[in-house]
Amino acid sequence: MKQPLTEEKVFKDPVHNYIYVQDQTIWDLINTKEFQRLRRIRQLGTSYLTFHGAEHSRFSHSLGVYEITRKIISQFERNGYPDWPAEEKLVSLCAALLHDVGHGPFSHSLEEVFDTDHEQWTCKIILEDTEINRVLRSVSEQFPEQVAAVIQKTYPKPIVVSLISSQMDADRMDYLLRDAYFTGVNYGTFDLERILRVLRPYKGKIVVKESGMHAVEHYLMSRYQMYWQIYFHPVTRSSEIILRQIFRRAQELYVGGYVFDWMPTPIMRLIQNTMTVQDYLKLDEALVQTAFTQWSEESDLILNDLCSRFMNRQLYKYITIDNPDEALLNEISDCFSSIGMNPEYHMEIDYPFDLPYDVYRPDKKEGEKKEKAPILLLDGQDEISEISAKSDIVRSITGLHQGQYHLYYPEEPLKKNIHSIPDSLKKIFKLD
Amino acid sequence: MKQPLTEEKVFKDPVHNYIYVQDQTIWDLINTKEFQRLRRIRQLGTSYLTFHGAEHSRFSHSLGVYEITRKIISQFERNGYPDWPAEEKLVSLCAALLHDVGHGPFSHSLEEVFDTDHEQWTCKIILEDTEINRVLRSVSEQFPEQVAAVIQKTYPKPIVVSLISSQMDADRMDYLLRDAYFTGVNYGTFDLERILRVLRPYKGKIVVKESGMHAVEHYLMSRYQMYWQIYFHPVTRSSEIILRQIFRRAQELYVGGYVFDWMPTPIMRLIQNTMTVQDYLKLDEALVQTAFTQWSEESDLILNDLCSRFMNRQLYKYITIDNPDEALLNEISDCFSSIGMNPEYHMEIDYPFDLPYDVYRPDKKEGEKKEKAPILLLDGQDEISEISAKSDIVRSITGLHQGQYHLYYPEEPLKKNIHSIPDSLKKIFKLD
Amino acid sequence: MKQPLTEEKVFKDPVHNYIYVQDQTIWDLINTKEFQRLRRIRQLGTSYLTFHGAEHSRFSHSLGVYEITRKIISQFERNGYPDWPAEEKLVSLCAALLHDVGHGPFSHSLEEVFDTDHEQWTCKIILEDTEINRVLRSVSEQFPEQVAAVIQKTYPKPIVVSLISSQMDADRMDYLLRDAYFTGVNYGTFDLERILRVLRPYKGKIVVKESGMHAVEHYLMSRYQMYWQIYFHPVTRSSEIILRQIFRRAQELYVGGYVFDWMPTPIMRLIQNTMTVQDYLKLDEALVQTAFTQWSEESDLILNDLCSRFMNRQLYKYITIDNPDEALLNEISDCFSSIGMNPEYHMEIDYPFDLPYDVYRPDKKEGEKKEKAPILLLDGQDEISEISAKSDIVRSITGLHQGQYHLYYPEEPLKKNIHSIPDSLKKIFKLD
Amino acid sequence: MKQPLTEEKVFKDPVHNYIYVQDQTIWDLINTKEFQRLRRIRQLGTSYLTFHGAEHSRFSHSLGVYEITRKIISQFERNGYPDWPAEEKLVSLCAALLHDVGHGPFSHSLEEVFDTDHEQWTCKIILEDTEINRVLRSVSEQFPEQVAAVIQKTYPKPIVVSLISSQMDADRMDYLLRDAYFTGVNYGTFDLERILRVLRPYKGKIVVKESGMHAVEHYLMSRYQMYWQIYFHPVTRSSEIILRQIFRRAQELYVGGYVFDWMPTPIMRLIQNTMTVQDYLKLDEALVQTAFTQWSEESDLILNDLCSRFMNRQLYKYITIDNPDEALLNEISDCFSSIGMNPEYHMEIDYPFDLPYDVYRPDKKEGEKKEKAPILLLDGQDEISEISAKSDIVRSITGLHQGQYHLYYPEEPLKKNIHSIPDSLKKIFKLD
Repeated sequence: MKQPLTEEKVFKDPVHNYIYVQDQTIWDLINTKEFQRLRRIRQLGTSYLTFHGAEHSRFSHSLGVYEITRKIISQFERNGYPDWPAEEKLVSLCAALLHDVGHGPFSHSLEEVFDTDHEQWTCKIILEDTEINRVLRSVSEQFPEQVAAVIQKTYPKPIVVSLISSQMDADRMDYLLRDAYFTGVNYGTFDLERILRVLRPYKGKIVVKESGMHAVEHYLMSRYQMYWQIYFHPVTRSSEIILRQIFRRAQELYVGGYVFDWMPTPIMRLIQNTMTVQDYLKLDEALVQTAFTQWSEESDLILNDLCSRFMNRQLYKYITIDNPDEALLNEISDCFSSIGMNPEYHMEIDYPFDLPYDVYRPDKKEGEKKEKAPILLLDGQDEISEISAKSDIVRSITGLHQGQYHLYYPEEPLKKNIHSIPDSLKKIFKLD
Repeated sequence: MKQPLTEEKVFKDPVHNYIYVQDQTIWDLINTKEFQRLRRIRQLGTSYLTFHGAEHSRFSHSLGVYEITRKIISQFERNGYPDWPAEEKLVSLCAALLHDVGHGPFSHSLEEVFDTDHEQWTCKIILEDTEINRVLRSVSEQFPEQVAAVIQKTYPKPIVVSLISSQMDADRMDYLLRDAYFTGVNYGTFDLERILRVLRPYKGKIVVKESGMHAVEHYLMSRYQMYWQIYFHPVTRSSEIILRQIFRRAQELYVGGYVFDWMPTPIMRLIQNTMTVQDYLKLDEALVQTAFTQWSEESDLILNDLCSRFMNRQLYKYITIDNPDEALLNEISDCFSSIGMNPEYHMEIDYPFDLPYDVYRPDKKEGEKKEKAPILLLDGQDEISEISAKSDIVRSITGLHQGQYHLYYPEEPLKKNIHSIPDSLKKIFKLD
Repeated sequence: MKQPLTEEKVFKDPVHNYIYVQDQTIWDLINTKEFQRLRRIRQLGTSYLTFHGAEHSRFSHSLGVYEITRKIISQFERNGYPDWPAEEKLVSLCAALLHDVGHGPFSHSLEEVFDTDHEQWTCKIILEDTEINRVLRSVSEQFPEQVAAVIQKTYPKPIVVSLISSQMDADRMDYLLRDAYFTGVNYGTFDLERILRVLRPYKGKIVVKESGMHAVEHYLMSRYQMYWQIYFHPVTRSSEIILRQIFRRAQELYVGGYVFDWMPTPIMRLIQNTMTVQDYLKLDEALVQTAFTQWSEESDLILNDLCSRFMNRQLYKYITIDNPDEALLNEISDCFSSIGMNPEYHMEIDYPFDLPYDVYRPDKKEGEKKEKAPILLLDGQDEISEISAKSDIVRSITGLHQGQYHLYYPEEPLKKNIHSIPDSLKKIFKLD
Repeated sequence: MKQPLTEEKVFKDPVHNYIYVQDQTIWDLINTKEFQRLRRIRQLGTSYLTFHGAEHSRFSHSLGVYEITRKIISQFERNGYPDWPAEEKLVSLCAALLHDVGHGPFSHSLEEVFDTDHEQWTCKIILEDTEINRVLRSVSEQFPEQVAAVIQKTYPKPIVVSLISSQMDADRMDYLLRDAYFTGVNYGTFDLERILRVLRPYKGKIVVKESGMHAVEHYLMSRYQMYWQIYFHPVTRSSEIILRQIFRRAQELYVGGYVFDWMPTPIMRLIQNTMTVQDYLKLDEALVQTAFTQWSEESDLILNDLCSRFMNRQLYKYITIDNPDEALLNEISDCFSSIGMNPEYHMEIDYPFDLPYDVYRPDKKEGEKKEKAPILLLDGQDEISEISAKSDIVRSITGLHQGQYHLYYPEEPLKKNIHSIPDSLKKIFKLD
């Protein structure tokens, strides 16, 4: 069923240098229109508004996850480790390549507003009538289900799942390196080749030879730095807030019967929650940006202001609030209302630690949606331990958080109405 | 008039590490909506379809050109060279930052079809009623004209013009380094710091200390490699051909009265050749991609096929033709027609050397639109010579060209109608 | 007194790209024979036996410390910070350049055996009759004393001292980056340019703008990784142990009246503790290696074995011992003696944490020889706090140590006499 | 006979990231004392006096040549190319590792003076009674001869020879990358991974797939830059001249019966031309530098001046001479004599192009000692052509030379005796 290419093909990649494609199935998947659509979805959402280099797409990240997975498996095969189930190679590679194929434009923000889930869309794209489904079915009738099961973490062999979904999986390894490269920071750089070399398949899991502990520590420290310096950057958070406000406002208006000068069908269906896979595949960042450009001329002032802000990068300012108690927030809200602002859209408290991210979380938490397999060390006596039991530094940073409450708001109205603002708030907003 | 910022600001940049902004004017220009629009115009047009990393925008390139210019001037100031006119700093920096602000989506392709000129649009954006114009006018009433004159190469002091427009200007230095970084190749890397160190202002020109000759040779060799490996890559050429076909077809249909399901106003005005600056500023790659997505459902089969091809990266194939004589082309054209293809859209001869590019061209050619100042060496006796007089290697590569004729065409119809194709053509198209 | 060079000179450097020399004094110091001697002293002692790239010398590191200091001061000058005493530039640069000039061959090992102190030698070289002293005196009669005072940390302006001696000084910043580059690891890489940008002279100290806290965290994490992965590497420790044994044995033999076939005068004076500056300057790693080559043919078997081991990299093996109690060590010692080994030379317990290194140590300890100034953050309200008060991650790693006891020994005699070794020890030495 | 290691071992390498050792034989060879001696021989001779980073040894280069050879063969094996003789792997790897094992200290200079030949010493070390010979013989009795034959280019299978000796062999590829890394220049960087990917074994030769032509061009351009900017750097040439003068003077003195305070046996044997392999193996750069330090106190003024110059980097100056005719050289020589200089030691004409180097030389020259196999392209029709037949740029740079005559001399005596120097020479030596 598995067809090697007559000649291996390569993609030039700035992170991995070359990405090697050796199977016809992988080649065909890359050439489907659903996979090509990932070129129009940025990997880091709105981060390009903070780090101008971060314009890379999920297309390149998906190739990268595939390539790391290929390298891991190739190491397992080269060393002939008996605990690696050789027959799982193709399903692993396909799942690695496709794991993000259901991402929509600015996914994280969009998912919060419309309660969609990119993983579900990934599975629909794999299982319903698409070019991807056709390519997968040419391997075998059940193959699409198998690939989807890996992505949904229900695949019977957990070792396959853990390749693309664990505390140190191909997905995370690629995005740290890639996001570091494109933003231009060196925080996210770790020694990938060394980590790949110390991975071992062992009793249904992927473990790390103990001699590689320092390399894993370095990976986790890189992760820590990336979160606080890139992913949680307050300017990025500000742009995400505006993005969510736009969608909330558009939904509110649509539901309220407002007639848009231009409302493209896929976005309408998104708002109505009636999207099909075919609609979803038409949702890309080009469409969203085009809609925002059009909407910045809509008659609704809130919508058009928000859209102009996003397109022209006139973002909300923020202040740090040590203790955002209700009294203070009410005072601010009242003040904002008194000068014609709309607190529902013009102020938002953000606490980055709400995000389902952390540097490292070894243990399963009750009720958590997707716990990720922890990082396990294999010592010379073939005993396994969770890394924070061995590494002081990992124990130290596990559970650390440095989050702060930020209040986001448009600064211009405050400046214009400075005489109407109480002195206590002036000080908070640094308006003196 | 010139206002230093109270605290210098930086942009994190993968190529220059940091980009330093020290003047209020530069800061304000970057924050105009016309400049922010460059985030939606890719630096390398369709090259991302060949090199998936090449998703970087003209926004980041423009910052880079500004930064290199700032570094050159800062070196001139630090060394107190008397031949550098210190009062020209701000106009130089603004021109460097803004020199590409008139670029439209996929400029090179679009300009060929609609005969527009991004340089003219740059000047209009600087001179007409825009946020950029307002910022520039706050320096002085004539300042917008001055900046535009530098970009049009009519500024009275040629040394200012040559900073951003010569055979080794800030523009070229940035794009070689940047395009190399984002595609991931190392061909375009040269020692920028060394080149900056050997530049000297001298009698109204910028010259290179002779000891820097090898660094310049290296820069020109990098250039050579980038042209043949990146800029003229046949897959990129294929996507540019399809892009031009789409615009040609859309224009043909529009002129012929065809009614589009969706025709956004800025594109309509482009086709009608009635664009104002405000229309032009709405043209970005998001809009073009959105139009193509919509048009891939138009009833015109040629248009919808071309648009699907572009969006899903189903590009034309190509063959190399040593001697594309009329007889052969006619034979191919007849054959294509005979199996229902439209030679006007389904075949195109391309010869990359037609492009107004070359590695190095020291001398002015009759009738050439924009000759670029050559690279001049300054020796120990304060004598100046054009680099190819001193460097054997530059003399060797000047005027070299390795272009080949390629014929681009859709492969699928040929395969489907293989029995109707004469054997001689089968061989040419490698269909046996 | 301070003479700028007519044309700035550069050294090509792999870490800083170029090192800029702008003063005649600096140029002359580099060209003294005492400074050139640093080319024959490796920066990382015996680490090249573990990481073959680590062959770089103290010459290149010294240039690097100078360059970082120059960049810090240049930033202070460019921004015109009033708290920076401008007149201290030259003394700072000279101290930075010369701070390591008294290092001998394999300094750390040699200092332990002979109780010398490279800092004292640095001061002697600066103050006694040397080419360096002559260059410094040409600035002013007291200038050599001033430079020496900075290095001895007794200079009246602590801000000058802290440039080259604090928890985040030019010395540490250069060696982390340089050692990372030459070993080829990426652990030691941090964002130097950003750290330089957030340093501020403030009330006699150098502090860090609070917005740079994450960059400092990254620097400290890099430090942590470098210590555990490079500086404390057990193979390097093994070679240092052998080196110390060689010197101890040579001293023991010399004191006991043994006549060496070859005993170069500078090493003899070192053993006799009668070295003058002129003797000391003849001590370099070429001489030490040549002596070892000669001594590997001496009749004393212990000396010649140790020298052969060092030159041919036949190092001692090591085992990790969780709890090196006296009983166990006595048992091992007895066993070693029983098979003809000499426990005084053939076994050594090592605990890397004995070294006067740590990742970060904010507070002064009673009786400690050289406490280093802690890292201070300056917040928006001009208040200063020690970094571990603000950064959870720094607090977590401060005081962490992961040291283990290692026992080093030659493995060959154990293997040869395996039948005479008790089973309990066989297990410990993995001889079964 | 070939024994895989139970676990593959790695060396951390800055150029290749990791070097993989998979055979016991390779591991054992690296651990011989003859191979470890390469740590005391610098890869670039005296270049560290020009580029301070260039302190890397032939040990690291030899590992690098091995690693590139391993990668080439591994690619051939992975693709199962029938033209690669699989049984030649171990001999190829051993020859790659050992090809430089006979290099002495500052080889190129030393070979010119004493007419030794490092390749002959390499073969002696492989074939006579050494640890290396023992390791090789454990593979098979003839194995040492086989390895030596590859190095002497007499091995019956030319494809094996060409791996380590051709116009684009593992040796050249490693040293370009390595020397670029350690000097810190980026001229020598080319896309190794791509070149490795396009190599093919073909009818007893290694050829390049035509699609890799641009990558080869880039490699040759890198070579060109490295030669002119690094290998032929006039400061390096100056230090080589002094080195040769030292050896010439020591020989002249020795032959004339001068009694040295210290003359180490291996150097004495070198001068006498009576060296055995055991003597030769004691020759390393530590010994040479130690001798020079001692000799800088010898009573012969020429020798002690030359040695001080070398150790303290007080090199000869140089001037460029367009046309070094006899009349001029005689005039200079007479002038030098008249002020007490010794023209035999104090002036030397150098023309870098005399060296047996060039960027690319496709054809065999009559009487040339070692012609290297040219670079061959393999096109789609399985036809082979020499690269300069296809590549304009290679044709252009083949045979280019930019050499200039330089005259080297000590500047101090000229300055001291300036009044005795004729005006015409003053001008030439820039003494006015």
